[in-house]
Amino acid sequence: MKAVGIIVEYNPFHNGHLYHIEQARVKSNADIVIAIMSGQFLQRGEPAIVDKFTRAKMAIAHGADLVVELPTIYAIQHSDIFAYAAVYLLNCLQVDFIIFGSEAGLIEPFYKIAEIECEKKPTYQALVKASLKQGLSYPHANQLALATLIGKTELDLKLPNNILGLSYLKAQQQINRTIKLETIKRKQASYHEASLSQPIASATAIRNYLFSDNPMLDVKDLSMPNESIALLNNYREYAGLFHTWDDYFPLLKYRLLTDTLEQLSMINGMTEGLEYRLKKQINQSKNFNDFLSNVLTKRYTKARLQRLFLHVLLNLTTETVHFHVNNLYTGELNDIRLLAMTKAGQLYLNFLKPRSEVTFIGQLKKNSSATMAIDANASAIYYLPITEPSQTKLRHKDFSPPHRQ
Amino acid sequence: MKAVGIIVEYNPFHNGHLYHIEQARVKSNADIVIAIMSGQFLQRGEPAIVDKFTRAKMAIAHGADLVVELPTIYAIQHSDIFAYAAVYLLNCLQVDFIIFGSEAGLIEPFYKIAEIECEKKPTYQALVKASLKQGLSYPHANQLALATLIGKTELDLKLPNNILGLSYLKAQQQINRTIKLETIKRKQASYHEASLSQPIASATAIRNYLFSDNPMLDVKDLSMPNESIALLNNYREYAGLFHTWDDYFPLLKYRLLTDTLEQLSMINGMTEGLEYRLKKQINQSKNFNDFLSNVLTKRYTKARLQRLFLHVLLNLTTETVHFHVNNLYTGELNDIRLLAMTKAGQLYLNFLKPRSEVTFIGQLKKNSSATMAIDANASAIYYLPITEPSQTKLRHKDFSPPHRQ
Repeated sequence: MKAVGIIVEYNPFHNGHLYHIEQARVKSNADIVIAIMSGQFLQRGEPAIVDKFTRAKMAIAHGADLVVELPTIYAIQHSDIFAYAAVYLLNCLQVDFIIFGSEAGLIEPFYKIAEIECEKKPTYQALVKASLKQGLSYPHANQLALATLIGKTELDLKLPNNILGLSYLKAQQQINRTIKLETIKRKQASYHEASLSQPIASATAIRNYLFSDNPMLDVKDLSMPNESIALLNNYREYAGLFHTWDDYFPLLKYRLLTDTLEQLSMINGMTEGLEYRLKKQINQSKNFNDFLSNVLTKRYTKARLQRLFLHVLLNLTTETVHFHVNNLYTGELNDIRLLAMTKAGQLYLNFLKPRSEVTFIGQLKKNSSATMAIDANASAIYYLPITEPSQTKLRHKDFSPPHRQ
Repeated sequence: MKAVGIIVEYNPFHNGHLYHIEQARVKSNADIVIAIMSGQFLQRGEPAIVDKFTRAKMAIAHGADLVVELPTIYAIQHSDIFAYAAVYLLNCLQVDFIIFGSEAGLIEPFYKIAEIECEKKPTYQALVKASLKQGLSYPHANQLALATLIGKTELDLKLPNNILGLSYLKAQQQINRTIKLETIKRKQASYHEASLSQPIASATAIRNYLFSDNPMLDVKDLSMPNESIALLNNYREYAGLFHTWDDYFPLLKYRLLTDTLEQLSMINGMTEGLEYRLKKQINQSKNFNDFLSNVLTKRYTKARLQRLFLHVLLNLTTETVHFHVNNLYTGELNDIRLLAMTKAGQLYLNFLKPRSEVTFIGQLKKNSSATMAIDANASAIYYLPITEPSQTKLRHKDFSPPHRQ
């Protein structure tokens, strides 16, 4: 039995994601598709539009056999840690291939750059640091360092999926070089592009549409499979909302107002006295976008700040993040959280269990690992904007068996 | 110019409070009535039904000449600290009298017991401690210790206003014995009694009425002066609500979910591993009353727990509270916050200024004292449940000149 791994967020699941799953299966000729998926909060530092259980169902309904949660503590870090954790879990799950979407669409330049980056790491890091000091953004500094090290490359490392792809390659080099990585060209509007277009729109365009005043969720040109639309509709009916940062702004504001500067300075990512800036700006901001744009400078990307805000919201200190990242890099992450599976996925697990040292967790228990305790807590916070009794019922899902189809 | 001091919360201002002000003026024959008033949060560990600015206006409209804020950090402590801070401020304001309402209505037993308590403090404290260990509530333990020390007394120290009165007496003995204390019998339903009755109902009964489904705020039998009713109406129209713990439950829940046990253990009043109990019960409670009754035991009074919840909500650690209480007992509290005044009140201040070492603060500044920074923060949290733009406008009141009439 061969397995192919994909690394996803599905915010929400659309035709581009369907194409990705289909191509992964075709290109790898694998029997099983395993998706590593971010949970309630995403790598760009945002709450997912609908919860992880709904998004896992979307994946299963469209060809994935197993959906595994990428623990929150890794999912909301920058691309290198996010990618390392995802590839680490896929290696635990003994996949033969990993197939990712990228703007580039060719795997060779990824391999080439990843090798150079790994070989010349100190020089590379020094170059990036120097550019950052001159006020350049991280993607730009990255691009410049590579240009210096390897001359011209066809890989545009200012594009988000190319950046992630390179991080996957680097992780694979460190974790297990026998896993074969392949990329497919994203057949859709670019990540940041905001207009709906047939047949595949970007997730950003879909979210913008869903958050418009009166979206009709059954329209054809949403570029989403019907089942995915139905699951979105069901969730909103039950929860009463699609989740956005606006729903968490009162909580973020409350914490920034009540935490001391000393407490805030201990939050992961709170560098260069940012706590003073946040404390000051929260008093002058009426909503989340207001706050974000008041805090933004050339120095920090939007994603970087949003990730920081998530760490504040979830009270995740540098100490906590370092502890878990350290566990990851020393190979002590051994629990794998299953969110959903098909019968084929279940068969694969049965095959894997006697051949693997990891523990598969279908539902959280009171004495779950520290990593999963953070996931349970992230769920509790994620559902806070929902009124009772739905809030409590949704929270129980973490403590219930995974979805099987 | 003679001044009489009163210590109040006005939650909300009713006919009983009017009677108190009138009697204070008559009994003391003073020219000026000075009210020390709790701010946004009250001694029983609750948010005030309307903000401190509205309640200060109510006081000025009904005979008070000067309304001074009792800093939050003292207002939400048990009766001895609450009373000490209030009497301390009244002493700074050089009042000649303090007149308080009590269930007893006679001052002699208060003097008698306060003297004995101060003289035999170690024995008294040991007796109270022993009773608490046996599981008695604090008021009961208090009563028992007194009975042991002085035999039978006509003062029932299970009644809340008698308890506070005794605390005022004890504070006066320590701060300045030349201030004359006097008490008047409360002419109203007892504090905890919940039915509206003519002509003076309890504040509890009035609040219950206001929080009923459809209260008509112009009805006569509310036992409140018309001006007070009008101010209540205006506030609710502007803010969109009367404040209750329900409005802060999502924030309390959020903090209890995200703070670590270690962080919670540092909160003032978090004794005997209560943090474990709170963490556990918050997961099983759907609203504030649910939570309160899940946490309640014979060991803790409702007020004691609500004060603890307020300390959690406002993130006030034992270290912070001890720092400020220590400042109070060593006489380092020198800033006095004015919320409202009449012309006579202003004249009295003009008379006082050259004869006093305290600083009068009409509006907060960025570099206000640490005590007032806590008040500003308490205001920010207090107004959080209010939608924009009203929320921001109300918060600006702390940074605007006091109300003058």
